[in-house]
Amino acid sequence: MSKVQPRTLSGFMELMPARQIQFDRMMAVLRESYSLYGFTPLDTPIIEASEVLLAKGGGETEKQIYRFQKGDSDLSLRFDLTVPLAKYVAQYSGQLAFPFRRFQIGKVYRGERAQRGRFREFYQADIDIIGDGKLDISNDAEIPAIIYRTFTALGLKRFQIRVNNRKILNGFYAMLDLTHESGAIMRTVDKLDKIGAAQVKELLMAEEIGLNAEQAGEIMRFIAIDGSNAEVLQALEGYRGRHPLFDEGLDELTTVARYLAAFGVPEDHFKVDLTIARGLDYYTGTVYETTMLDHPEIGSICSGGRFDNLAEYYTDKKLPGVGISIGLTRLFFVLEDQGYLNDQLNTAPADALILPMTEDLSAAIALATQLRSAGVRTQLYGEQKKFKQKMSYADKLGVPYVIFLGEEEIASGVAAVKNMRTGEQVKVSPDEAVNLIQAGLELLNQGTPIVDKE
Amino acid sequence: MSKVQPRTLSGFMELMPARQIQFDRMMAVLRESYSLYGFTPLDTPIIEASEVLLAKGGGETEKQIYRFQKGDSDLSLRFDLTVPLAKYVAQYSGQLAFPFRRFQIGKVYRGERAQRGRFREFYQADIDIIGDGKLDISNDAEIPAIIYRTFTALGLKRFQIRVNNRKILNGFYAMLDLTHESGAIMRTVDKLDKIGAAQVKELLMAEEIGLNAEQAGEIMRFIAIDGSNAEVLQALEGYRGRHPLFDEGLDELTTVARYLAAFGVPEDHFKVDLTIARGLDYYTGTVYETTMLDHPEIGSICSGGRFDNLAEYYTDKKLPGVGISIGLTRLFFVLEDQGYLNDQLNTAPADALILPMTEDLSAAIALATQLRSAGVRTQLYGEQKKFKQKMSYADKLGVPYVIFLGEEEIASGVAAVKNMRTGEQVKVSPDEAVNLIQAGLELLNQGTPIVDKE
Repeated sequence: MSKVQPRTLSGFMELMPARQIQFDRMMAVLRESYSLYGFTPLDTPIIEASEVLLAKGGGETEKQIYRFQKGDSDLSLRFDLTVPLAKYVAQYSGQLAFPFRRFQIGKVYRGERAQRGRFREFYQADIDIIGDGKLDISNDAEIPAIIYRTFTALGLKRFQIRVNNRKILNGFYAMLDLTHESGAIMRTVDKLDKIGAAQVKELLMAEEIGLNAEQAGEIMRFIAIDGSNAEVLQALEGYRGRHPLFDEGLDELTTVARYLAAFGVPEDHFKVDLTIARGLDYYTGTVYETTMLDHPEIGSICSGGRFDNLAEYYTDKKLPGVGISIGLTRLFFVLEDQGYLNDQLNTAPADALILPMTEDLSAAIALATQLRSAGVRTQLYGEQKKFKQKMSYADKLGVPYVIFLGEEEIASGVAAVKNMRTGEQVKVSPDEAVNLIQAGLELLNQGTPIVDKE
Repeated sequence: MSKVQPRTLSGFMELMPARQIQFDRMMAVLRESYSLYGFTPLDTPIIEASEVLLAKGGGETEKQIYRFQKGDSDLSLRFDLTVPLAKYVAQYSGQLAFPFRRFQIGKVYRGERAQRGRFREFYQADIDIIGDGKLDISNDAEIPAIIYRTFTALGLKRFQIRVNNRKILNGFYAMLDLTHESGAIMRTVDKLDKIGAAQVKELLMAEEIGLNAEQAGEIMRFIAIDGSNAEVLQALEGYRGRHPLFDEGLDELTTVARYLAAFGVPEDHFKVDLTIARGLDYYTGTVYETTMLDHPEIGSICSGGRFDNLAEYYTDKKLPGVGISIGLTRLFFVLEDQGYLNDQLNTAPADALILPMTEDLSAAIALATQLRSAGVRTQLYGEQKKFKQKMSYADKLGVPYVIFLGEEEIASGVAAVKNMRTGEQVKVSPDEAVNLIQAGLELLNQGTPIVDKE
């Protein structure tokens, strides 16, 4: 028979078993962390009517979308989890309690140009809090707490959540009568890290934007505001009273910063940063980015913000909200690439592997059943192979415990349990084997999915 | 702005939050159960190259497939989890340890005619054990153990795993020199429940199949074999020695039945049933079906079997295996429809909801942080609303505990904790609140996702 070459599409992550277990472990931490903060899981379809998914229309997204005809239907694969959320909330608003807090971890699709570390199918892990008409600012302070808790539970240590407020930026530009130019100015200011302050100022005064020296100076002074969160907020107080939008933004940012300690976020993991704007017009208040201190080059690993209107394309209902998204597939790729994954944790499909040394498997099966009843993930090797091949299988799996069961052990009601990491082997009763393995696993599973520097 | 009607495609399940939590709870049980038996999780792409996915080609499947062009690529959405497994194993066989045991729980797509209880996007939950060249029969006995453990952990009680072996059937027809007619005969025999024995016999002797009275009689006697597993196996021994394939199948089935007790499967949940054949030519040995005793009309809720060659379209490597699949979305639909879901378990997004009675939220936030640190899933209601609206939110969520925190409580270092199921309210310290809620949750979360009759 002629064969088809088995292959996986470019831009689609497909992991080897051990890596998959590491990925799943990260997802489990995210689910647990999001749940701890009172978010409910949602699982919307991957396919939606194109008319619904592209209601907002236009932009980069539409070019990248996986869109196709099936029968009479014009269908598209979701490209993020926000639009499906907007659809869901608009569709079922009568049945939901607001604020509606949901998390969703799911695959999304974008036909981007394939390149290393970029994916066409990737997981996003989103949380959003949606209000009905209004949503209190305290919710904006809770988001960094969730990010902090989540990344800490994953094992990440050297990261920083950077926060700003679009109202402060927009209010500031309104003060200078530069509302119209604010987009171009922000895009230029965004290059600060790359090209330096002098060149940014030059660009601001160049023909395209055309600020005068005073305006450019004001902007350069503003974006130079730095220091502790208290110092930055203090410096911003100097602008109070010049524009109501600015004052509103400053009040919000001050409240967010004030509540953070009670939410358990240490000061050194949270930074008020006036250079954060987030490209999307979608955000109207608080904005967040999260950077790995040792890898600024990979950009933000968790971003989001406050928006005024989640679902204006579907409903007249005003649905403000605040949320964040982690691009999990890309994050996992980076963590693997940079050696952050904790390879000390068990990545074998089982905790214990029973190698029967008899032809009849009844005793080995009974032992497997006992171990499983005690919660020990157990494999039973039932193949009639040579001892060497059996051990080679155990080594390949990387299973932490191997249990040998021969005629002699069966006759004396014991099993030979070998700790594959230490090489130590003992003959014990099945009950003792359970205790021994469970104690060992407790030690083994203590670490976090990620290992970061202190 | 003109609005787009938010809607979900027909044939796509989208659940309300409480139902989603019930669905997720079932998935968690499946993951845990499959892991306990030493299966490793896989997560293959939803999109594959059509050439790869349709390597086998033909049949009903191809008509139902979601297939489309993106740029130069001819792409398809997976319609099951078996073909992606075959691709995976063929592609990475050099890196895998055999027997390779994997589970996968994921969405698959079939453009079936939409009707009640049929889905176009649905979850399958599969386990498979793949051997390299050979795979011991003990694996076939382990599968019913996994099904039994999984459904029992879900809370299902009145179900039966029905097992047969294709070699017995094929061997039997070979004895009668009816190998060529065996497909048509089995399709006819399959109607037994519907049309009765007399009519089956009549059809077997009708022109299309054209058996003589002796042959039809042999078949009717064979499919009438019934009784305890031991009795059925005993009756089958009467045919031994007439065809080697039959003898091989009988040996296998006998071994499977013999190992089941050691695997912990009670006799009343397992039935040797000679009428089970499974439609697919794919299966070559053991075959499984699982029925709900009180709902035979919904058919098998978990099916599978032994196959000789997983990936013959991709590789010359002989990869025999055995596996089963649960159609999770359809099963969930049926369970909901028939009132099997346990609505007593907590389906709220949180265990505790804090209702602050002060404008400043610092104390409420600190309490939320403490509860979360103790593992209590906590929501903080930060909206400035009237008391009645706050309570209505709590009621809508169905949250088991509400915590009131006013000036007075804050001043005396306590919180008012209300058990929403009993109505009981106590003022206690934050530490006591944690203990109280944790003890209550332990009771509350004791049940299984499904409630079945005894």
